[in-house]
Amino acid sequence: MQTENLLKQVNFIKEIDKLKYIQRKTKLFNSNRNENDAEHSWHLAMMTIVLAEHSDKPIDVLKVLKMVLIHDIVEIDAGDTFIYDTAKSHTNTEEELMAAKRIFGLLPAEQAEEFITIWTEFEEGITDEAKFARSMDRFEPLLQNTSNNGGTWAEFDVPYQKVYDKKKAIKNGSATLWNYAENLINESVDKGILKK
Amino acid sequence: MQTENLLKQVNFIKEIDKLKYIQRKTKLFNSNRNENDAEHSWHLAMMTIVLAEHSDKPIDVLKVLKMVLIHDIVEIDAGDTFIYDTAKSHTNTEEELMAAKRIFGLLPAEQAEEFITIWTEFEEGITDEAKFARSMDRFEPLLQNTSNNGGTWAEFDVPYQKVYDKKKAIKNGSATLWNYAENLINESVDKGILKK
Repeated sequence: MQTENLLKQVNFIKEIDKLKYIQRKTKLFNSNRNENDAEHSWHLAMMTIVLAEHSDKPIDVLKVLKMVLIHDIVEIDAGDTFIYDTAKSHTNTEEELMAAKRIFGLLPAEQAEEFITIWTEFEEGITDEAKFARSMDRFEPLLQNTSNNGGTWAEFDVPYQKVYDKKKAIKNGSATLWNYAENLINESVDKGILKK
Repeated sequence: MQTENLLKQVNFIKEIDKLKYIQRKTKLFNSNRNENDAEHSWHLAMMTIVLAEHSDKPIDVLKVLKMVLIHDIVEIDAGDTFIYDTAKSHTNTEEELMAAKRIFGLLPAEQAEEFITIWTEFEEGITDEAKFARSMDRFEPLLQNTSNNGGTWAEFDVPYQKVYDKKKAIKNGSATLWNYAENLINESVDKGILKK
């Protein structure tokens, strides 16, 4: 049983290597190089450890870590959807659910079920852990864009209100982080790197 | 106090972006593209979650995750040292300790201390968590090299005994993983991708 599990787990470990090839729209800090999903997921995990104290509600940090580490794995099959894409909605697409079932389904049954449940919980964004994990997912590109002279906002001509509406999700996880984020957004308007 | 902490934490979050530029010797699975330290750290974190059940001893998974997520951050200053480098020892160099103090020192004092302590614990490899974390760090490149027709073993002409001696550390964390790893090493010799 243990060996049978291990063989499945090794297959999964090899499969998720593909996350390193999924390019995001966002660039690294002070850079023109696109970030990939594995790098992004690592950064969110680090942010979770470092910023957990700012969560409005007590959170299970291990669970949040699992969420941010696995949240983009479905993109191996479904691809990265740009958050400001007007043609395609990011959340809970049928394609992503199929991807979750295929990729997490490589794992032993019990683990597969755990991963699909955690991924679904993240996508729904209702629990305190999911809210904080989603704050992290919104906060990282905000820091990147402001360090990149507007980054994707400038590149894809995204207006203030759209940015504000998406970033507001940070508030669901942490009032402190949202206060900081809101100031950053307003400063970006003042600097002319975000158009109001 | 909370705002003061947050400013320091954001500085740290920006600084560690540099880990994405640190190239390892090892290549991605079935690939010629070098892996970077951020991708590697994400993969070890995923492996920790997936493989924790194979640890010989009960482990605090959250602690192991912290270890693998931060273990290479010192390389931002100290650079990546190839595990089979004959001129330079990897572990506990003075340079790495200075790097740990500078980079983790960007964080609020209490957090800085926690991170330096966890990094030191990982480097020493004595506790059950450190042993398992170090197993992960040895196991990933083994899987990569065997999927890359010998990978760095072939590229840098590393003989069987050296590989075996380094990989033996997997045994300290998990008899099950070591059993699998030992078989992989022996198969590699049989296939001619590792020279005995």
